[in-house]
Amino acid sequence: MSKISYVNGRYIAHRHAVVHIEDRGYQFADGVYEVIPIAKERIVDGDAHMDRLESSLSALRIAMPASRTVLNTIIQELIAINGLKNGLIYIQVTRGVAPRDHKFPRLTKSALIMTAKSTKPIARDLLENGVSVITIPDLRWKRCDIKSVSLLPNVLGKQKAIEHGAFESWQVDADGNVTEGTSTNAWIVKDGVILTRPRGPEILGGITRESIITLAIKNGLPLREQAFSVAEAYEADEAFLTSSGNYILPVIRIDEKPIGSARPGRITQNILKIYREYVGLLD
Amino acid sequence: MSKISYVNGRYIAHRHAVVHIEDRGYQFADGVYEVIPIAKERIVDGDAHMDRLESSLSALRIAMPASRTVLNTIIQELIAINGLKNGLIYIQVTRGVAPRDHKFPRLTKSALIMTAKSTKPIARDLLENGVSVITIPDLRWKRCDIKSVSLLPNVLGKQKAIEHGAFESWQVDADGNVTEGTSTNAWIVKDGVILTRPRGPEILGGITRESIITLAIKNGLPLREQAFSVAEAYEADEAFLTSSGNYILPVIRIDEKPIGSARPGRITQNILKIYREYVGLLD
Repeated sequence: MSKISYVNGRYIAHRHAVVHIEDRGYQFADGVYEVIPIAKERIVDGDAHMDRLESSLSALRIAMPASRTVLNTIIQELIAINGLKNGLIYIQVTRGVAPRDHKFPRLTKSALIMTAKSTKPIARDLLENGVSVITIPDLRWKRCDIKSVSLLPNVLGKQKAIEHGAFESWQVDADGNVTEGTSTNAWIVKDGVILTRPRGPEILGGITRESIITLAIKNGLPLREQAFSVAEAYEADEAFLTSSGNYILPVIRIDEKPIGSARPGRITQNILKIYREYVGLLD
Repeated sequence: MSKISYVNGRYIAHRHAVVHIEDRGYQFADGVYEVIPIAKERIVDGDAHMDRLESSLSALRIAMPASRTVLNTIIQELIAINGLKNGLIYIQVTRGVAPRDHKFPRLTKSALIMTAKSTKPIARDLLENGVSVITIPDLRWKRCDIKSVSLLPNVLGKQKAIEHGAFESWQVDADGNVTEGTSTNAWIVKDGVILTRPRGPEILGGITRESIITLAIKNGLPLREQAFSVAEAYEADEAFLTSSGNYILPVIRIDEKPIGSARPGRITQNILKIYREYVGLLD
């Protein structure tokens, strides 16, 4: 059976999933999204993703396209129809369709699309050997805490990483501090303490990031929400990145400089084990 | 006859003009656009718009979707089919359709849509009485010289203006200097000299802006491309804004402070007359 997506009230073959060219998502990036992991048919951190969706929409004054109950029902339907075991549910909500004009249209209904994607388990190679990142200037706007589809700088940053043989780009603010990756949060470990940038308009509050902070505290692992510079990252003992798509990946090289022994570190592996148990991938 | 748009090779009734939900314009704002004025069925500054389209695409490494000759033919067709006398041609080009992944897809064909819109003459009231603007912090990314569809901050800024009873928001950088409006360039006149911010990554090089600079020089009007602060704008003798959609509009109030005598200024009116002659609206 062909893959089924959801578009504005209809379940439809993915290849026929279309929106109007004057959907404001297309012409203005006037919308937000969520990527929700599914592990063994179970939604990971569903409530947190819904909270953030509501929060992003609220920041942009876009109406929720449906109640949380309805959104969750659609997610469950997509998991069932597509036979999704492990993968991602993508949700996008925009301010809807209206004749092109920058200002908010009146009386427009929010648009809602959802897609389901099966994913393979994270490659053992990436988990065991880690990945490389490069650093780049952070070109993004000043409200990165809103999970908007205004992702062009993220696209350019990710592409730069790929072309440098790296997995991700860590973006760096004017003060020389790392903000975050283009689709991941950035972490280092120094002298036994896990460090990640505190929430603020410069970063997206990652759901995986939040879960890891909670889990680290619960498991007695020292952690500080504190910005770190590129220089500090080079000198770190360990590093890793996190996202809803890849959970946690060890970082072993930054700008081609080896981090620690250039192997996934002990604390990173500990966090990875704790997190995978939490998600249910190890049971 | 219903309005006809162009979508990826087809002329189609506007209400049926759709793109796939995985068009990268929708999920990543990975595309650019142009808004080309049509005055008396004639394309205004067509070559300059095509130059900028190519330049934006080149900056993002998106392939031209068709040759300039073909693009111009489609524009002419849309003008003819839609019986467009005065109005706007909207062109959007994205990196095309591909399974969602930040990095550039391989082998994807650029997507191309065009729409035609009839517009009424600029309201006499706006031309004769001028408009108000407010100032807001510039939240945008660091490559505003690329005419991308990543317009969310522009949308929010324009909405703020409307809610303050103003026509436009002038965005202000960290140094207190005006960059530009959310869809217009910003100008002041002080001691007989026309001032507008020089081109750079902080502003879009407006086509109307360029034409006005050329026309001012040709007509011996003193003009300097020089950034000005909000404080300087408050103290200006005259102010105006420019765009492809509205050409030139006098600004008579900034943040509710009257500019000069709070009437369209003499130099502004002179520029307006020269520009309207150039566009052919006065012949």
